[in-house]
Amino acid sequence: MAPEGNALLSHIAVPADIRALDPALLPRLADELRGTLVRSVSRTGGHLGASLGVVELTIALHRVFDTPEDILIWDVGHQAYPHKMLTGRLGRLETIRQGGGLSGFTKRDESAYDPFGAGHSSTSISAALGFAAARRLLGRPGRVVCVIGDGALSAGLAYEGLNNAGASGLPVTVIINDNAMSISPPVGALSGHLDALAGGANAPENLFTALGFTYRGPVDGHDMAALVEALEVVRDCGGPVVLHVRTEKGHGYAPAEKAADRLHGVTAFDPATGVQAKPKAIAPSFTQVFADALIAEARDDRRIVGITAAMASGTGIERFAKAFPDRAFDTGIAEQHAVTFAAGLACEGMKPFCAIYSTFLQRAYDQIVHDVAIQHLPVRFAIDRAGLVGADGATHAGSYDLAMLACLPGMVVMAPADEAELRDMVATAAAYDEGPIAFRFPRGDGFGADLSEPARVLTIGRGRIYAEGEDVAILSLGTRLAAASDAADRLARDGIFATVADARFVKPLDAELILSLARRHRVLITVEEAAGGFGTAVLRLLAEARMPVGRLVVRTLALPDRFLPHDGPGVLLQAAGLDGAGIAETARSALEQVRPRMAARPVLVAAGMPGFVS
Amino acid sequence: MAPEGNALLSHIAVPADIRALDPALLPRLADELRGTLVRSVSRTGGHLGASLGVVELTIALHRVFDTPEDILIWDVGHQAYPHKMLTGRLGRLETIRQGGGLSGFTKRDESAYDPFGAGHSSTSISAALGFAAARRLLGRPGRVVCVIGDGALSAGLAYEGLNNAGASGLPVTVIINDNAMSISPPVGALSGHLDALAGGANAPENLFTALGFTYRGPVDGHDMAALVEALEVVRDCGGPVVLHVRTEKGHGYAPAEKAADRLHGVTAFDPATGVQAKPKAIAPSFTQVFADALIAEARDDRRIVGITAAMASGTGIERFAKAFPDRAFDTGIAEQHAVTFAAGLACEGMKPFCAIYSTFLQRAYDQIVHDVAIQHLPVRFAIDRAGLVGADGATHAGSYDLAMLACLPGMVVMAPADEAELRDMVATAAAYDEGPIAFRFPRGDGFGADLSEPARVLTIGRGRIYAEGEDVAILSLGTRLAAASDAADRLARDGIFATVADARFVKPLDAELILSLARRHRVLITVEEAAGGFGTAVLRLLAEARMPVGRLVVRTLALPDRFLPHDGPGVLLQAAGLDGAGIAETARSALEQVRPRMAARPVLVAAGMPGFVS
Repeated sequence: MAPEGNALLSHIAVPADIRALDPALLPRLADELRGTLVRSVSRTGGHLGASLGVVELTIALHRVFDTPEDILIWDVGHQAYPHKMLTGRLGRLETIRQGGGLSGFTKRDESAYDPFGAGHSSTSISAALGFAAARRLLGRPGRVVCVIGDGALSAGLAYEGLNNAGASGLPVTVIINDNAMSISPPVGALSGHLDALAGGANAPENLFTALGFTYRGPVDGHDMAALVEALEVVRDCGGPVVLHVRTEKGHGYAPAEKAADRLHGVTAFDPATGVQAKPKAIAPSFTQVFADALIAEARDDRRIVGITAAMASGTGIERFAKAFPDRAFDTGIAEQHAVTFAAGLACEGMKPFCAIYSTFLQRAYDQIVHDVAIQHLPVRFAIDRAGLVGADGATHAGSYDLAMLACLPGMVVMAPADEAELRDMVATAAAYDEGPIAFRFPRGDGFGADLSEPARVLTIGRGRIYAEGEDVAILSLGTRLAAASDAADRLARDGIFATVADARFVKPLDAELILSLARRHRVLITVEEAAGGFGTAVLRLLAEARMPVGRLVVRTLALPDRFLPHDGPGVLLQAAGLDGAGIAETARSALEQVRPRMAARPVLVAAGMPGFVS
Repeated sequence: MAPEGNALLSHIAVPADIRALDPALLPRLADELRGTLVRSVSRTGGHLGASLGVVELTIALHRVFDTPEDILIWDVGHQAYPHKMLTGRLGRLETIRQGGGLSGFTKRDESAYDPFGAGHSSTSISAALGFAAARRLLGRPGRVVCVIGDGALSAGLAYEGLNNAGASGLPVTVIINDNAMSISPPVGALSGHLDALAGGANAPENLFTALGFTYRGPVDGHDMAALVEALEVVRDCGGPVVLHVRTEKGHGYAPAEKAADRLHGVTAFDPATGVQAKPKAIAPSFTQVFADALIAEARDDRRIVGITAAMASGTGIERFAKAFPDRAFDTGIAEQHAVTFAAGLACEGMKPFCAIYSTFLQRAYDQIVHDVAIQHLPVRFAIDRAGLVGADGATHAGSYDLAMLACLPGMVVMAPADEAELRDMVATAAAYDEGPIAFRFPRGDGFGADLSEPARVLTIGRGRIYAEGEDVAILSLGTRLAAASDAADRLARDGIFATVADARFVKPLDAELILSLARRHRVLITVEEAAGGFGTAVLRLLAEARMPVGRLVVRTLALPDRFLPHDGPGVLLQAAGLDGAGIAETARSALEQVRPRMAARPVLVAAGMPGFVS
């Protein structure tokens, strides 16, 4: 454990203060920074391991480069806690990832020292090249530096950035923060190549020189003097240069160094031992239920394989891999490849389950369209972290999956109301072989649904009535069903009776169910934890069904048309009007709108309203 | 010009026939194939240059590998004409790219020899790895080969595939078809690296060895004996292997060898001279109008820059680059990088215009969400080839841009009705600095709109009435306005009078205009050449505006929920009901639905219907 004091750190108001320090004091500053970081994150939780690994590098970068005039971009941004502590945000560190507090990533709105925000990985080289090109055109001075991890280099975007920067001749400095770790241990051939380079193989050609970069390194990322010297050399290089820095994720904090994941992301913990205060789960998480269900299906069907893009633990594929080591694939941070690879597997009759977070699936949209959907290949998409995610904020919210997928011909899109239905959807996806099929489910614990019955294969395009009422219909998608049910309870107290339905399918919609709800109620409210895709599909169904509207008021509740900040999911859902109280309030206001017209109903019918065409 | 005969070629019914030939005859087969290819494409048009470059390679591959048991995947697929000619499709070659005829790309539905379809580039390595992994798991024999161009290697997906294949140890053979050309000359550092390798620099390490591949080559792609020998060697290698083949795009046909684009894509031409029968354009193309408008804006604003991802000619950025060489960027086939690079430029106050085809923008969805929209950066998206594209078929249709973009907070999305409005939208995008803004426009010639007036900056979120009627309202997005107007003319002949409006904006919608149309008509028809995004947004607006429906029938015309085959755009638009006749027919049927209710209208009003809330 590092010393308690922060006599030096407390005097670093801005990075210029680091430049004024006696170089002999820099290691002490690093110790103070590390100790303060551990203490603070032990209270708040957050991304710890990656930040611990770049304490010296962060100090050295601000020492050598003239930030914020020089541009410093942290890839992903979850390793930027030391950077935040040295750039005027030390006093707010304990607000990190909390509502109204510091973001867990770099963010332009937060500081002039965060020139480019992040959250997703592998963007920094391309962004840095944009800054460098702009500065050349504008004749503006200043250097451009980005720091990218070895794991982030597995993504195609990073390669595209290297290939373009290497050819540009522009003075872009790429610091490879090589800790031989992604969130999970690294995969792909590149990690072996970096190891060979770090071992001093020192070949005249390597991946970076092939892509037009000057290569420098490796340098020990915890040797402050060596780092400062190496950075001074690359600062004064003309043209694109890579500096290969070897760091240890979790460095300098024994519990992190010893942990398999180097304490990558933690809840509050005991700083003396590193033991995290894991809140007792009410029920197995959706991820765990998915993994167990997939394992169960895979026992009976050797064609089932699981694919993750560097989220083996987060998606449950790690669990699947323990049961079926040969049938689990981790592609690294390479969602595009993961999907096209799955398409290839499907061509040979395998049943690939691509387990990818909603927000990261955005990286593979073209592959979903072009390689999977157009070819009608039965690739299964298990979309975790759909909807709001809380502390990770807007960059990680799973908001757009429904909009992305529901417009694709032949795509089946499902969302389970609870973990029992999730299990049913895994079985349904395993059984369905006619084309692509996706199911989205949220982050976090399940509701404790009864899992004692065996999983059932659902009928494609069929929802269900959950509760019957007569005044309003609430058509819920996915786990909003609990809130819809809560809304019905609230309304019942006021003598308003709601039918609650679980849509299950965004595509194909259960037209019969929905038109029946429309026919039997004067208000229909759709509820989805997404930025559209479900409610709009229902509206289109009603329009196409030649609804003799006039009787029906429809409201589509969805995520609002703005990026929601990081905060507790409950707070955000309430703000979005997607909790029980919000849904009930929408129902009440919609009912008020139709009430004045109720008297007209018999007249309308008498006037010969055409029936529904379903 | 190659000889006229095809005595050998006509006897190749399947690739096994190539394996039975005396090897001394293979060059003659190549000559016949090349001659037949030139004659056929001279009549039909199509992708010529790339196919000419792989005549020998195609024969050698089918000679050495046991297709279709061995898997042969052509990246992009536009170079696969010789492959089609040798795999039972010679007799249908003259139907290529025509309705009901052969696809211009590889396609699974078309032949057992097309194990993986394409159209977009850089997918083949990932797909090949999927086949190889499946075969290992299933214990199925057979080799897996893919052929990928040097241009396609600039895409991140190809790198992700290499990084995963290289680490897999699986016997995947990657043939680099290095013709030192993309559609345009190559960009990025990789092309220099390939040149160095081809020059025999023969470094022990190169990009491919760094990624875990055995590297073989270079081999002359027009030397049949050398090719066959090299392919036999790599066929018998275990593990992942790259064979570097140098080819000449357009090889063996003098007019192609001499052309700057090597006759990449051609209309019908004179086989003796290579001179193409370019149909006389009615008016400048939308692309050209865009480029000229961008040049005009850039004259007054040095912050404007243009970005293309390997489509310099197709997007008009080539034209822009002639005017402003320093301010044009070609990223290669790297849409992800193009967008994040643009985000970096925008951070420094530049005004980047990303000119990307609608279908290729799918590759950059996450970068649009994460790097541009969440950061509210004023990146301009000039989305060419939006809507149906005709002969290139489903893989190239620009169908999903509206669904992708309209769900993003703060994104402005426009579509011009004609080329004059396109010019106005370029000016609007140049002037708008509050966040991201996009405009989509179709492939092909403009309507000949009057461009004599200067371009105007449009009011954000404001559409316009184009013609006034009273029976139905047709709200058109983009260039469907001409069809909407035609529909109005057809309806007028039957005594039905239509209001026609040009929405201009998908986001923000012109709520005032749309609610006014809804108020003043009993039928509202939305028209878009996209798979949703506009009509559904209108439906949601009407629902949110608490429309006292009952008076209004809404129909949303959009691309149908299936992948449309390649065919003439007119044929496809007619099939989709998006031409004048189709729109008029929808209007008539909608009117029939409301007519029986007309008598009820006064009663409804008398019953105290609430007004609109807008």
